[in-house]
Amino acid sequence: MDNRPKIILVRPQMGENIGAVARAMSNFGLCELRIVAPRDGWPNEAAVAMASGAAPIIHAAQLYATVPEALADIQHAYATTARPRDVEKRVVTPKEAVCEIATSGEQVAFVFGPERTGLENDDLSWCRTIVTIPTAENASLNLAQSAVLMGYEWWQQAGKGLDVSPSEAATTEQYEQFFTRLESSLDESDFFKVPAKKAGMMLNLKAMFLRAGHTEQELRTLHGILSALSGR
Amino acid sequence: MDNRPKIILVRPQMGENIGAVARAMSNFGLCELRIVAPRDGWPNEAAVAMASGAAPIIHAAQLYATVPEALADIQHAYATTARPRDVEKRVVTPKEAVCEIATSGEQVAFVFGPERTGLENDDLSWCRTIVTIPTAENASLNLAQSAVLMGYEWWQQAGKGLDVSPSEAATTEQYEQFFTRLESSLDESDFFKVPAKKAGMMLNLKAMFLRAGHTEQELRTLHGILSALSGR
Repeated sequence: MDNRPKIILVRPQMGENIGAVARAMSNFGLCELRIVAPRDGWPNEAAVAMASGAAPIIHAAQLYATVPEALADIQHAYATTARPRDVEKRVVTPKEAVCEIATSGEQVAFVFGPERTGLENDDLSWCRTIVTIPTAENASLNLAQSAVLMGYEWWQQAGKGLDVSPSEAATTEQYEQFFTRLESSLDESDFFKVPAKKAGMMLNLKAMFLRAGHTEQELRTLHGILSALSGR
Repeated sequence: MDNRPKIILVRPQMGENIGAVARAMSNFGLCELRIVAPRDGWPNEAAVAMASGAAPIIHAAQLYATVPEALADIQHAYATTARPRDVEKRVVTPKEAVCEIATSGEQVAFVFGPERTGLENDDLSWCRTIVTIPTAENASLNLAQSAVLMGYEWWQQAGKGLDVSPSEAATTEQYEQFFTRLESSLDESDFFKVPAKKAGMMLNLKAMFLRAGHTEQELRTLHGILSALSGR
């Protein structure tokens, strides 16, 4: 089974950086690039030019409007960010991440934020785990350098040639359906008493559920619980 | 003792790439940059501009005319290159290199060649070991990305905080003196019968001696042998 990590660029700004990420990927056998809402639209000539020999990765890249759409078939999204935010998430090193990936059999993605600002809390809410690259203080790794490091670690692990069974973990799309259902159930039962706090509470709930890494079957059970509790 | 690796750029072409290397270094606590015969001279405004917050590394960079001068105080130079050439050298991965460094106590340098052509055999002849970054086929890591990977591996190893005694290994300067002496002794004794083959033979001899990693005392012994054999 091909469980090479997908690379997801969220709202990338410069086409050159998208091209540089494609080149970085090609060094380490990664070939599936997904792009969420690029600032300068798509296709992007600067991306193709910078990609050089890795232009096929750019041409094959898939475009998405939102993070959950880009992650729909992904079972374990790793958010690459230097700064874990206020939402509770487990944080691993790149090496720990690729070790997990090698043995989990999950469909995984490495998610990178925009050049200047990084991933926002709402982007992170779709990721089960945060990967933080160990650096000195005041680090300023650019997008392609971060992609190089993740690819390098993955390539070293992948070179060991583990062959594992596909994971039965739920995909992001299945989680999204559950979260949508959960939110409307909670709305109907007037759970969110203070509207201003609803967004933050949903982020925390999503983090709590994603962290558990449920199987598809377990999500079905949770759907059943919602149905039972809401009397439908 | 500070045995953080020095970064040596041999005949770098673009100032932007020198600046990008400085930024890469600053992410991983490396601060000593040495530059051999940069194509566009020195100082270089493009290097300062690209270095951004790492400009102090650029301002403190030392300029050298030749590789052996840049490596004079170095005990173990690692040549970073994708293509081991015809000279016999041991080849290690970045991880193996930083493990050695952590326990050897040697003064070490990571040596990088020009952007397009990489290190030449004569540059390599001053390096005891070759570091090759594991990649997929047709890899094209740029200068700063290679520096990022070496820095990243070193930083992870250095984070373990080993404290070891300084090595008594000979420095490049001491080796250079020995090689100069060896060459003139061999010249005098008409060792190089075919002038056209002399350069290649000296490269092989240098590789053979450097590979052994002699101490300063052992090099003195070798000097003594030369004196004895040449009757001085």
